[in-house]
Amino acid sequence: MSDSPYESLCHAVSDASLISATSSILSWDQETQMPEQGVELRSRQMAQLAKLAHEMGTKPQILHLIDRAEGCAEVAGDPAKAANVREMRRDFERKIKLPSRLVEELARVSSAAQHEWAGARKDSDFKRFLPHLTRLVELNREQADCLGVPEGGERWDALADLYEPGCRATMVSGVFAPLRTRLVALIDRIKGASRGPSDRFNQTAFPIERQRELVRWVSEQIGFDFTRGRLDQSTHPFCGGSHCRDVRMTTRYKETCVNDALGSTMHEAGHGMYEQGLPFSQVGTPLGEAVSLGIHESQSRMWENQVGRSRQFWSWIAPQLPSRIGDPASTFSVDELYGAANIVEPSFIRVEADEATYNLHVMVRFELERALIGGTLEPCDLPGAWNEKYRDYLGLEVPEDRVGCLQDVHWSMGAFGYFPTYTLGTLYAAQFFDTACAGNPGLVEGFTRGQFSPLLAWLQQNIHRHGRRYGPGELCELVTGKPLSAEHFLRYLEGKLAPLYGL
Amino acid sequence: MSDSPYESLCHAVSDASLISATSSILSWDQETQMPEQGVELRSRQMAQLAKLAHEMGTKPQILHLIDRAEGCAEVAGDPAKAANVREMRRDFERKIKLPSRLVEELARVSSAAQHEWAGARKDSDFKRFLPHLTRLVELNREQADCLGVPEGGERWDALADLYEPGCRATMVSGVFAPLRTRLVALIDRIKGASRGPSDRFNQTAFPIERQRELVRWVSEQIGFDFTRGRLDQSTHPFCGGSHCRDVRMTTRYKETCVNDALGSTMHEAGHGMYEQGLPFSQVGTPLGEAVSLGIHESQSRMWENQVGRSRQFWSWIAPQLPSRIGDPASTFSVDELYGAANIVEPSFIRVEADEATYNLHVMVRFELERALIGGTLEPCDLPGAWNEKYRDYLGLEVPEDRVGCLQDVHWSMGAFGYFPTYTLGTLYAAQFFDTACAGNPGLVEGFTRGQFSPLLAWLQQNIHRHGRRYGPGELCELVTGKPLSAEHFLRYLEGKLAPLYGL
Repeated sequence: MSDSPYESLCHAVSDASLISATSSILSWDQETQMPEQGVELRSRQMAQLAKLAHEMGTKPQILHLIDRAEGCAEVAGDPAKAANVREMRRDFERKIKLPSRLVEELARVSSAAQHEWAGARKDSDFKRFLPHLTRLVELNREQADCLGVPEGGERWDALADLYEPGCRATMVSGVFAPLRTRLVALIDRIKGASRGPSDRFNQTAFPIERQRELVRWVSEQIGFDFTRGRLDQSTHPFCGGSHCRDVRMTTRYKETCVNDALGSTMHEAGHGMYEQGLPFSQVGTPLGEAVSLGIHESQSRMWENQVGRSRQFWSWIAPQLPSRIGDPASTFSVDELYGAANIVEPSFIRVEADEATYNLHVMVRFELERALIGGTLEPCDLPGAWNEKYRDYLGLEVPEDRVGCLQDVHWSMGAFGYFPTYTLGTLYAAQFFDTACAGNPGLVEGFTRGQFSPLLAWLQQNIHRHGRRYGPGELCELVTGKPLSAEHFLRYLEGKLAPLYGL
Repeated sequence: MSDSPYESLCHAVSDASLISATSSILSWDQETQMPEQGVELRSRQMAQLAKLAHEMGTKPQILHLIDRAEGCAEVAGDPAKAANVREMRRDFERKIKLPSRLVEELARVSSAAQHEWAGARKDSDFKRFLPHLTRLVELNREQADCLGVPEGGERWDALADLYEPGCRATMVSGVFAPLRTRLVALIDRIKGASRGPSDRFNQTAFPIERQRELVRWVSEQIGFDFTRGRLDQSTHPFCGGSHCRDVRMTTRYKETCVNDALGSTMHEAGHGMYEQGLPFSQVGTPLGEAVSLGIHESQSRMWENQVGRSRQFWSWIAPQLPSRIGDPASTFSVDELYGAANIVEPSFIRVEADEATYNLHVMVRFELERALIGGTLEPCDLPGAWNEKYRDYLGLEVPEDRVGCLQDVHWSMGAFGYFPTYTLGTLYAAQFFDTACAGNPGLVEGFTRGQFSPLLAWLQQNIHRHGRRYGPGELCELVTGKPLSAEHFLRYLEGKLAPLYGL
């Protein structure tokens, strides 16, 4: 029996996406395994795979198969299959709008820019990075025009849509503005608080080898499946791999801060468990892929924060710490450990920020990239604009660009429109978590006994298994009954920090 | 200025070979890193890359560029470039002879066969493997016919040529027959010897972690460059990677046998240093590739045996062992350590065999695969034929197929014509080594002071840097002034073993 049009389409699409799965393993390898001198040829391998993936994903035969599948009873009668074909069309139409020349130039320029950025950051030398940034902003404006600015929208929207389907700058700023007001007020009250948690635990050294064993064990306990994934070390933690049975996350270690490795690992394990929860039968088609970066981030934030920074989590892990990482851990009470995981302190570096200040870092970046792409901010004026916002939002004077506008890799990679997904994820996490708790009494209490599987099962059932069947906003309404709102997050954060800081 | 025809050809050929470099990293990953459940999709990735590499390597445009380059003054006037184009034509003509259908079927059948072979070996169940072996023999006979049997030759020759250009069964048996007579006689004398080395060192346990540090350090000392390579662990040691700046070797560890890890590592480092010695400027073209598997094996054997089993090597390393792997090492004299590395003992398993018996294992396989491909041995009769030869050559009664004809992976991978390269490499190693010593007085004596760079420099200069400029036989005559002969190896082996066994 020959394949149905839908089956033929799935084969063609997953064949093209197999190249991206290969590319993804090579990226992981580059960050974790590759000998240092391998880099030159590796860039050529990555560029070749990007080109092949673009060629295979834009073959006219795929469009022909989409047309045929859309007209089939098999697809019309099955909402999941219909959603899969809808997303395949979306992907195809997006890819075909980009000329190969632009795809290749973006790959080439951003590869060089990342290299220059790394050097510029090290020397805190913005001028060195400026020509690359300028070119990347130009290319991204061109990319936005190719993709098409949505009606009533702006260029930034066309780029953000690559990471968060349907995302619009006006929608983001509508959510961010009230959030900023409440966060700034909360942080001000914390700054003026008469008491707060001790950071003694974050200053106590524990052997890296023991930390390594601890975070691997915690990953297993919360549900990461090591027969379908790995945990390695890299400078910047990330989660990659090629599909739900080969998920590769990384973390990092600092002798004096167990919470650094623990928080990073639980964050990446949240991403990893989402990937592992996608259906293997749909690998290579949209139903086997994550909805958006925002929804992805909701999974990592939830395990890092709602779970890993909860009092229940610490009361479970506290008695186990001395035998797992060493005797000094026995000198900390549950209260002290819980407090140390929840210290709020405005700082320069986004990736080291606490839950309260983190979103202000994101807002700064969103506003600046929106202005860069919109043409109201010149790249050469970036450092001044950056420093002004840090003064306004966080009350900090940025001493040098290394800890200012040169700190993040994203823009050097050519990624504009990406940053807001971090805060969207934070908000989705709180809203999803409230819904999970409402439907599962005792869910949080279970953490004190190391019971994390009810939460994971809820996420698998309500979010993971759908792949891209629903868009992010649609999924949020389906799961929580409401559109995304910052209220859940603010209530969660204020409810936690007020007692810790005696507000 | 636009590219010359030769430059255009080099770009096209190296572009196609970039896919194989990618595939090679994925193979390494599969053996050393991949989570166990990743295997199903990985087979699909590997098959896709094989197909793409075949398609890109057989594009008519490449033949057109070869034709144009051959007519150019740039190529005619430069023997290295002429050799490069000659080898590109050789590769192209070989690939184009194989129909895509056969390439894909061989890949598919051997992938399934390897899986079945692993299970069959575990259970010592030849019947389970038989249908796969039968099909692989058929497909390889078909492959030989597609490639074309050389005039006056036989089908096996067409397959062996894939691994050792120009290799003929009659040539191999002409070299092997007298070698077998001398080896059998030598082994008989050893069996009857009144004394021999003690294997106490091979029975003494040392922590694996310390062994790991030791073999990494030894690799560095003999010249393996870790900025351009890695050392990992796998069940079967191998050397892979994608090019001379990203060479990946593996080894294995047994607590009670330091010589297992040390020998394996020096062997793979020999392969690895050959790869690292190939010119980076020629990556992806024949001048950047190894001559043949036989020449490759000459490099691994030389570092494993001529260096790693020499008295000079052990007198250098002996005083360092206690601090590197632990105190018990101080109870062994240099003589004892040197002896333990040179024990001769007929055994069932090729990869565990000593220098004297090893080649008899290879001969058994060569004779049997020649008969299988030639049609004078039916696959179902393999176990009986195997066991008979082990009785004749090694005086052993094979108790079960697990340690008999099911022990090696090669045939299940569809590789027939590969085995003799192990012994050819052994003979090349001895002949090359004699030449290196003749031209460098004090070379071997230098090992006692940890001076290995004169040997490596000689190999780089005389062998590595040429890539595929010369064929294996031609290279041997160029370097040593004589065609390949077993004399060098036999003299080396008898000269070493006679005093150890008091013959």
